[in-house]
Amino acid sequence: MTEPASRPLLFGVGLGPGDPAYMTVRAREILLSADRLAHFCKRGRRGNARSTADAVIGPDPAREIAMAYPVTTEVPVDEDGYSGPIAAFYDETAEALAAEMAQGRSVAVICDGDPFLYGSFMHLWRRLAHRFPTEVVPGVTAMAGAWAQAGAPISWGDDVMTVLPGTLPEAELARRLADTDAAVVMKLGRNLPKVRRALALAGLAERAIYVERATMAGQVVCRLAERGDAEAPYFSLILVPGEGRRL
Amino acid sequence: MTEPASRPLLFGVGLGPGDPAYMTVRAREILLSADRLAHFCKRGRRGNARSTADAVIGPDPAREIAMAYPVTTEVPVDEDGYSGPIAAFYDETAEALAAEMAQGRSVAVICDGDPFLYGSFMHLWRRLAHRFPTEVVPGVTAMAGAWAQAGAPISWGDDVMTVLPGTLPEAELARRLADTDAAVVMKLGRNLPKVRRALALAGLAERAIYVERATMAGQVVCRLAERGDAEAPYFSLILVPGEGRRL
Repeated sequence: MTEPASRPLLFGVGLGPGDPAYMTVRAREILLSADRLAHFCKRGRRGNARSTADAVIGPDPAREIAMAYPVTTEVPVDEDGYSGPIAAFYDETAEALAAEMAQGRSVAVICDGDPFLYGSFMHLWRRLAHRFPTEVVPGVTAMAGAWAQAGAPISWGDDVMTVLPGTLPEAELARRLADTDAAVVMKLGRNLPKVRRALALAGLAERAIYVERATMAGQVVCRLAERGDAEAPYFSLILVPGEGRRL
Repeated sequence: MTEPASRPLLFGVGLGPGDPAYMTVRAREILLSADRLAHFCKRGRRGNARSTADAVIGPDPAREIAMAYPVTTEVPVDEDGYSGPIAAFYDETAEALAAEMAQGRSVAVICDGDPFLYGSFMHLWRRLAHRFPTEVVPGVTAMAGAWAQAGAPISWGDDVMTVLPGTLPEAELARRLADTDAAVVMKLGRNLPKVRRALALAGLAERAIYVERATMAGQVVCRLAERGDAEAPYFSLILVPGEGRRL
């Protein structure tokens, strides 16, 4: 090996919100050059990040590693039925990637949005980054894609902006929503009716904007008030734009 | 004019945190194709976003519009000496861009980070977006560049993440820092000693990471405890990484 020891072997690559046009130049380079491309997915399905990468690389079975979650949203995350299997899954997946890197092959884990903002990649990173030279490529977040598409500047002047998981209890959501200038609520899923009630308690029901599949095919942008309570898909979030200092 | 009426004339283009490799594909396209490239700057100085764009376009005087702030940080934003001149500046600048667009020329306002997250572009957007077809191109934020460079995943599991301007009063900063799982503090400048005290009050002094000029030449990443109290430059922020659910 003539390369310097610091040549990265592990990459966490943010591909952005979904539209391949919002991929960074560095992400494209790594898609084209990494020896292995790993992506998270549901069993039997292609991951969304892998589909985003299609614009650059097309199918490439020799390089691809599909990391299929053993369980996804069917089991609540705070039950033992989730954390046990998923931790074992991250352990096994990390070792599989480590085996590739031990052979000198670079492994790029491709990620939706940004790798270090609520990213599954973080669970591999904490198992591997101390063992292999690592590069993390930041990406455009889903929320930035959403507020651009919604025409909704999120924070002005001295606004405080809060990112909230919809999994929090209703009273806590309401309290935090009432105490911030701007908010993004993620992880909606079956929490949508609860999040709506919390927004109403905080007096924000009218300001809330619902965005689904931002920048991707099938995008939906509407006032939350116009959206029913049916379960929200994984790629959805709510924006509460700030109303801070206009100059 | 044979183009459809919806062809964008006004672009707000996020160029990312500073390293041109973190520019999106769409941003590059617009840099290459827009009839006019406008950027904010201090009087007599080139703006940072314009320097980021150098990797793609080099100097291009025929297309460039430098929008020089009449006042910057010398005057506190809550004093009349700031908001009056700066609002007039945005009014005049918006009209100058409108005059270009009225001639059918497209105008790209190039922005550091993301245009809709505390961006000066927003003040032009609210004056112009209802008058001209507009496209906002999201960008990688400065904070995402910072946490990638710091090797500091910012939010895990059900972490609440709060973005705070360092301009807030010390007690409010401390209260909000104590009430969140993860935080980013922007707008440090002369507020750094106050922000440090607020972090200490919230019990977060040891967790705080200081990042200056993330992804750019002269980058600094260190524990806040290792950084003195000298005024922080514009391109600096503090990260308090979350410690949520590890799987």
